[in-house]
Amino acid sequence: MQPKRISIVGVGLLGGSLGQAVKAFVNDCEVIGYGHRRETMRKALEFGAIDRAETSLSAAVKKCDMVVLCTPVGLFAAMLKQMAGELSPGTVVTDVGSTKRSVVALAEEILPAGVHFVGSHPMAGSEKRGVEFARPDLFQNALCITTPTPRTDPKALAMVEHFWQAIGMRLARVTPDEHDSLLADVSHLPHALAAALIAMQRDEGLALVGKGFLDTTRIAGGDGALWRDILLDNRDNLLASLSRLRRNLAHLEEMIEAGKGEALAKWLDQSAARRGEVLNQKLHEVNPD
Amino acid sequence: MQPKRISIVGVGLLGGSLGQAVKAFVNDCEVIGYGHRRETMRKALEFGAIDRAETSLSAAVKKCDMVVLCTPVGLFAAMLKQMAGELSPGTVVTDVGSTKRSVVALAEEILPAGVHFVGSHPMAGSEKRGVEFARPDLFQNALCITTPTPRTDPKALAMVEHFWQAIGMRLARVTPDEHDSLLADVSHLPHALAAALIAMQRDEGLALVGKGFLDTTRIAGGDGALWRDILLDNRDNLLASLSRLRRNLAHLEEMIEAGKGEALAKWLDQSAARRGEVLNQKLHEVNPD
Repeated sequence: MQPKRISIVGVGLLGGSLGQAVKAFVNDCEVIGYGHRRETMRKALEFGAIDRAETSLSAAVKKCDMVVLCTPVGLFAAMLKQMAGELSPGTVVTDVGSTKRSVVALAEEILPAGVHFVGSHPMAGSEKRGVEFARPDLFQNALCITTPTPRTDPKALAMVEHFWQAIGMRLARVTPDEHDSLLADVSHLPHALAAALIAMQRDEGLALVGKGFLDTTRIAGGDGALWRDILLDNRDNLLASLSRLRRNLAHLEEMIEAGKGEALAKWLDQSAARRGEVLNQKLHEVNPD
Repeated sequence: MQPKRISIVGVGLLGGSLGQAVKAFVNDCEVIGYGHRRETMRKALEFGAIDRAETSLSAAVKKCDMVVLCTPVGLFAAMLKQMAGELSPGTVVTDVGSTKRSVVALAEEILPAGVHFVGSHPMAGSEKRGVEFARPDLFQNALCITTPTPRTDPKALAMVEHFWQAIGMRLARVTPDEHDSLLADVSHLPHALAAALIAMQRDEGLALVGKGFLDTTRIAGGDGALWRDILLDNRDNLLASLSRLRRNLAHLEEMIEAGKGEALAKWLDQSAARRGEVLNQKLHEVNPD
């Protein structure tokens, strides 16, 4: 059930942390890293993220029992096509992408019979970039969402879920459609909003920002090309989320324009209370009674 | 130049932290706290925020050389009116409010000749509430904005700025108009946005949030009535900020709808870089070469 040889395709912050986590928490599992730049592979070895480096994808995935796609979402199609002919029957392929409909559809189309794909979204990461910021504990207590479909092999799903649990994650299952719709609200829209909030600032204002502003915009520190892929891949859901946010902002504007103090205080308190509930739930998950 | 007896009007998280900071960093200065609830005053004494508690405002401000308004912004007018007749000539009054035009105008109108008002906005705080969360180091390395006008007494301004420095703050000076316009962008709009971002969520989505969402919405944990006062007091600027944000979001939507990947990645990278500059500037201010 547990992989003996795993291939990490793309060894940046997330792939690197995954390699370190496997080496820290999974016994007897060889970690092979793939990247097209030799310098990145050298660093991946130096930071203890992988046991063996390959700059050829076919060499990296051959004879592995598990392959994890850790490149930006926009490269998944190319990676799947390149590796399809190299995978042994029984290999389980998963990924760490922030969108799930496209990769699940691609994998079910491209991968040969006998190779099993399971979509995964480990909700861990950082606005930092590169294997030099990798941490073996990045996944501890964080949530991993898997997105099985009627075509998903039950044993492959069990293996993938067991794998994420082994490196410290909690699990949730939703369909690829549900995933992309909900993540547009809770992740992709907040990212886009944080970037817009910076884009609209005057320089004189930025000289006066406090800790609150920096926290609110922290996620906007991420890599532009990586997030471009995510936002465009999920564009229909993101546009729907933006439109719902606009309705909320219009309601806010109306309360402010009309000076509806009581309604405004109630609206603010409701959001504060709702956030408090989420925070309590999170703390409970990390430290259950 | 340094106050010998200071009155803190409103001893919540901010007023309580201020009292603790004065007791930690200012020599020979008696701290008097005013609050209308005996229970709050008992706690303020228990948490070492004040030396003496008063539930009568006139008793609290009498014979003080400095008075700091630490109530919500919406109570400033009532507090200034009630204390106007009780202040000795030469008393310096300041505040910690998040908006400055209204309190400066009120103070210049209400306070008698010989009593000097200086508007202050120490950019420190927390989404927590109450004197039990007070911390004497809350103000360390944070920025305090003062908003003098042509009518501000230069000696009073010097005393107030010296006071904030004594408890560890850095200083900036802008006009009340500039303050409220810039703070709408960097503080009041982010707060409103964070609340809207929570308000628009579906419960199923909130079950899947990660650390990024919690950071982005941290400031929305604040007290609704307190923030209602701020948002309504600064409504013209906030509406202008919201309208500028809407233009940025429309630009974003257009890039997403049209699939303009290159422009979108550049826009995201520009925001990430701009935030990086602000963060570096902040770190440099805290640890100058």
